[in-house]
Amino acid sequence: MKPVVVRNIHRADSNAVGILESLGVSTSHEALGRSNLMKPYMRPIWAGASIAGPAVTVLAQPGDNWMIHVAIEQCQPGDILVVGCTTDNTDGMFGDLLGTSLKARGVKGLVIDAGCRDVAELQQMGFPVWSRAISAKGTVKATLGAVNIPVVCAGVNVIPGDVVVADDDGVVIIPAKLAVEVAQKGFKRREDEDGKRQKLASGILGLDMYNMREPLAKAGLVYVDNPEDV
Amino acid sequence: MKPVVVRNIHRADSNAVGILESLGVSTSHEALGRSNLMKPYMRPIWAGASIAGPAVTVLAQPGDNWMIHVAIEQCQPGDILVVGCTTDNTDGMFGDLLGTSLKARGVKGLVIDAGCRDVAELQQMGFPVWSRAISAKGTVKATLGAVNIPVVCAGVNVIPGDVVVADDDGVVIIPAKLAVEVAQKGFKRREDEDGKRQKLASGILGLDMYNMREPLAKAGLVYVDNPEDV
Amino acid sequence: MKPVVVRNIHRADSNAVGILESLGVSTSHEALGRSNLMKPYMRPIWAGASIAGPAVTVLAQPGDNWMIHVAIEQCQPGDILVVGCTTDNTDGMFGDLLGTSLKARGVKGLVIDAGCRDVAELQQMGFPVWSRAISAKGTVKATLGAVNIPVVCAGVNVIPGDVVVADDDGVVIIPAKLAVEVAQKGFKRREDEDGKRQKLASGILGLDMYNMREPLAKAGLVYVDNPEDV
Amino acid sequence: MKPVVVRNIHRADSNAVGILESLGVSTSHEALGRSNLMKPYMRPIWAGASIAGPAVTVLAQPGDNWMIHVAIEQCQPGDILVVGCTTDNTDGMFGDLLGTSLKARGVKGLVIDAGCRDVAELQQMGFPVWSRAISAKGTVKATLGAVNIPVVCAGVNVIPGDVVVADDDGVVIIPAKLAVEVAQKGFKRREDEDGKRQKLASGILGLDMYNMREPLAKAGLVYVDNPEDV
Amino acid sequence: MKPVVVRNIHRADSNAVGILESLGVSTSHEALGRSNLMKPYMRPIWAGASIAGPAVTVLAQPGDNWMIHVAIEQCQPGDILVVGCTTDNTDGMFGDLLGTSLKARGVKGLVIDAGCRDVAELQQMGFPVWSRAISAKGTVKATLGAVNIPVVCAGVNVIPGDVVVADDDGVVIIPAKLAVEVAQKGFKRREDEDGKRQKLASGILGLDMYNMREPLAKAGLVYVDNPEDV
Amino acid sequence: MKPVVVRNIHRADSNAVGILESLGVSTSHEALGRSNLMKPYMRPIWAGASIAGPAVTVLAQPGDNWMIHVAIEQCQPGDILVVGCTTDNTDGMFGDLLGTSLKARGVKGLVIDAGCRDVAELQQMGFPVWSRAISAKGTVKATLGAVNIPVVCAGVNVIPGDVVVADDDGVVIIPAKLAVEVAQKGFKRREDEDGKRQKLASGILGLDMYNMREPLAKAGLVYVDNPEDV
Repeated sequence: MKPVVVRNIHRADSNAVGILESLGVSTSHEALGRSNLMKPYMRPIWAGASIAGPAVTVLAQPGDNWMIHVAIEQCQPGDILVVGCTTDNTDGMFGDLLGTSLKARGVKGLVIDAGCRDVAELQQMGFPVWSRAISAKGTVKATLGAVNIPVVCAGVNVIPGDVVVADDDGVVIIPAKLAVEVAQKGFKRREDEDGKRQKLASGILGLDMYNMREPLAKAGLVYVDNPEDV
Repeated sequence: MKPVVVRNIHRADSNAVGILESLGVSTSHEALGRSNLMKPYMRPIWAGASIAGPAVTVLAQPGDNWMIHVAIEQCQPGDILVVGCTTDNTDGMFGDLLGTSLKARGVKGLVIDAGCRDVAELQQMGFPVWSRAISAKGTVKATLGAVNIPVVCAGVNVIPGDVVVADDDGVVIIPAKLAVEVAQKGFKRREDEDGKRQKLASGILGLDMYNMREPLAKAGLVYVDNPEDV
Repeated sequence: MKPVVVRNIHRADSNAVGILESLGVSTSHEALGRSNLMKPYMRPIWAGASIAGPAVTVLAQPGDNWMIHVAIEQCQPGDILVVGCTTDNTDGMFGDLLGTSLKARGVKGLVIDAGCRDVAELQQMGFPVWSRAISAKGTVKATLGAVNIPVVCAGVNVIPGDVVVADDDGVVIIPAKLAVEVAQKGFKRREDEDGKRQKLASGILGLDMYNMREPLAKAGLVYVDNPEDV
Repeated sequence: MKPVVVRNIHRADSNAVGILESLGVSTSHEALGRSNLMKPYMRPIWAGASIAGPAVTVLAQPGDNWMIHVAIEQCQPGDILVVGCTTDNTDGMFGDLLGTSLKARGVKGLVIDAGCRDVAELQQMGFPVWSRAISAKGTVKATLGAVNIPVVCAGVNVIPGDVVVADDDGVVIIPAKLAVEVAQKGFKRREDEDGKRQKLASGILGLDMYNMREPLAKAGLVYVDNPEDV
Repeated sequence: MKPVVVRNIHRADSNAVGILESLGVSTSHEALGRSNLMKPYMRPIWAGASIAGPAVTVLAQPGDNWMIHVAIEQCQPGDILVVGCTTDNTDGMFGDLLGTSLKARGVKGLVIDAGCRDVAELQQMGFPVWSRAISAKGTVKATLGAVNIPVVCAGVNVIPGDVVVADDDGVVIIPAKLAVEVAQKGFKRREDEDGKRQKLASGILGLDMYNMREPLAKAGLVYVDNPEDV
Repeated sequence: MKPVVVRNIHRADSNAVGILESLGVSTSHEALGRSNLMKPYMRPIWAGASIAGPAVTVLAQPGDNWMIHVAIEQCQPGDILVVGCTTDNTDGMFGDLLGTSLKARGVKGLVIDAGCRDVAELQQMGFPVWSRAISAKGTVKATLGAVNIPVVCAGVNVIPGDVVVADDDGVVIIPAKLAVEVAQKGFKRREDEDGKRQKLASGILGLDMYNMREPLAKAGLVYVDNPEDV
């Protein structure tokens, strides 16, 4: 890893970002073909936020948040900061001072594969964070990392400019070059789901709505009347 | 494992279910003799729900929710769906569409030894879920499992028809044949606890209320005045 | 380990305790020099509480809460009970009856390296608990431990009388003999942070406010314009 | 849970046990239809042992091995002791003294959902153990459990008399009533695998041997020549 | 994710691969600048193997090894198969039949972010595997994944053709385009370390050999004679 | 935490150390009264070593092994180095160069609450290490810690000079002031166990040898003949 900061990144299409934000994580993830979802340990520090935006990425060393300070300057309004770490680490690399700075810059939120602190303050100021842990553990500013290079965060490879979609279900990364296509697919999917929801609410079974009875029988599913018949 | 659906199960006594629901998890677990409690990783996706009902069981494959669709048809109003998995898995096997379908059928809630998604929507519609993880990861419908056979869920063997009691403290399973006896014991226990609570609130020590001083002394407990005396 | 109860402990200065309570975990932890923070698995069972007080300590056996009953008698108003365990254990060693008793005695809260139950009731009565797990699993009263000896709790060695500071960010232990000094340092730090927060909110970058640009360049950080230049 | 010892259990057919021992875990598990495999945290304390035998079961309390002492009397030559625990626990409930006693009785090995100690001594005496942890933590003999009731061990419900098959791949439980059938299926499967192994060793691809090319194409798999074509 | 197989990949320089194999994981990782190391849960199923080779990559679904069968055809002698999974999963996706097939093809070993079985057989045939778990759990062949696309495996993004270096210390990925440079740096580093090792073996302290005393003093390190002086 | 090195520590009695080494972890832990055992994640990197010696302690920062270099100078022949970390961390803070240096100084082994690398080399040179992980991840030398202050390592508070006992069962810490007493108790215990082992090997049941039948009956244990009688 070279200690480098990349100034210009190719941010995903902003219309697509807007649609993906309205779709949320689960629908966006489905529309992408069910990949690029961060591992489920990545959780919001407070519930209810739902955002999307282009990723500015940071590769940090364990217990060291120097590069986050460096990255802020590279952020534009609407961006989301994504922090990967060279080692599994839960130290509180991010707190309300950094949150204040990001908010002043118009950054929508933070996704960090490490710890976060000042959670009460961050919730009060309405700045959303997804992290692997909550920890007050202080960090140093001693070792270089990098900004705006591809980083693996919670199991997903994030390219700077990719769309981060984050809500109560977790975080998914939509590659920038697929953003428009995925937004369109997701939009259709949601409409389709609205129709299904109404049918299911009226009592129609998924077994019938999805025509599952025949493939289930073909696959060998057997119905018996009583436990003793198994 | 045979791919089978059992249609008729022996649901626990409904009066007992009602009492167990009012008692909650901790008291029901005590009344059963402190067994059959699911492992503590099984947590509600939103706080405040407290339910009880007969179990309809599902054995699912990792990343595959086909059998949940099959199981819905076997549910009656008041039931609780319990999903075990052949392998540890956190994929989001359950979301708001399945929740809509279960709600339409009068099912009280879901306990799933895997992941759940659409948590904001599920909370909004008031459908309670206890799961091992929250994850948007989509699933397939490719491999058979079984419905209404005994399944191990979060460390507990659940027989279809057993009473599931679930609240903010977790999930406990009361075997159907013991439901009436446990409900009675739990009811007494709660009354007994109400009396104890009043005494403790008035400042009486548990040491005295439970007559612990003598057995503690017999077991060898020693009091010293200062740290230096240890 | 000798089964012993120490009656008299040296509680930290009460003024310092008051200041530390107002500072909270992250600032107190920084002021101490970034040590003595409990591991991040130690989480509040409900959000929003923020307390500090001298530690009364308990060493308990797995699945056995006998010593908690013994410890209550040793507590004074304003104390915080800290429970370590001889083995990793998640059993529900603490519930609303013990909470009622501690509250009657004026104890501010509990930190337990094991499980807690009756979380809904404890939240309702406003008694804060930090625990490693939530579990209804009942416990026995069979084996002796000790009260008011040094115990390791969630990775920190706690001396009876040390200041426990606990909030949504976790739990930190301030040694009694350092309490006054740490309170003073923390107080200054908070004032200093208030100034920084205003600057950052106005858009000044941390890079400039902390004079980081020169040391970053010295350490070898390079800026490039495009991803292709890396 | 009632504190009870069941004296007579229905041990699985001994010929089937012999065949299952020769087949090992993976083949037995396949022949059963891929269920009843213990979770992968259950590992041998030393490599190379491969055994099978009827289960004598123990339900133990955390940190308490009283019931293991009780269970030994119920063991017959060729049995395997299976210990479940009411809570996740890693205490060293089993050591070389208990191993000596079990060996004297002709017991083939131990499967314990808790900790084991004296691992060097147990390896030296050739007594195989599968456990969730290695720990020297001593245990008490204070609280009752049960012997020869169904117990959940590492995620599997074990009925006394079921066949335990254990080797370097882990532990699988074959229900007693299915033992003969599973042994037969497994025997066939092994012969079948021997043929496949020879073909694969000669360079024939599984793609061809299993006729996978057509179903892969039908499922939509596409071959491209270069990374740029994706 | 598109279900695709890429036929031609750019394999790293073979001389560099040879050098990296002789250097092993720790030195290669240092020479790369301390990045791209797989998480430490990735462990060899038997000790003593030390290999390097170009990566052929697989993205598999949880509990499904269909794509491994597909990938074998794309392997050349000297390659190492790297399997990532769309979800955390420990099922035994790889066993001795697949090992036989890979060995017949001249593949050096396997790195799999899932489970492995038949460990005794694989050790006997000398086929090395690094996996996140050992499990006999059988898998299905039902859902498509991809072969030779970039995959995240144990926290590292692996591009097909990158050099996999694996030994008892774990697994590191050297990007193909950096392989020659890293091999050269690593070679120098090893020579340098040989010199240091001799000095240290003769009793010279690292404090002196690395000239650490002055920077330590500058950073504020203080020596005191007795514990009471702290 | 103050960045300090304490030069003189009170090492435990050397005769006691010798006896404790011969007793091993499990017996020493019992003789101490079953406390001060490190958590079971602390495992040897190679099996078969069994050592005891006075602790020289290090408090290190995550991903930083600067203080280990400092500590070596403070070690005497026969010592064991014990490294705690301010945060959970698995980086490979220790490798064969440091091992060479410690060996040259006569240090018996290392216990580190972080990662270790070069495991093949360390095994070859016969230098035993107990660690929480194996990882090649390189570390920096940037931030101060401390040497020979009390540190919490794997859940145990270690005072410099305390006896470290380590073998295949794990690691236990015997406080220096109790070393003689514990060595004596342990010696007796071992003799006592030798007698018990012979009886158990001859087929005498623990139930009888320990006179457990009466207390079991008093506690309420019931024997029934058949599963149906439960």
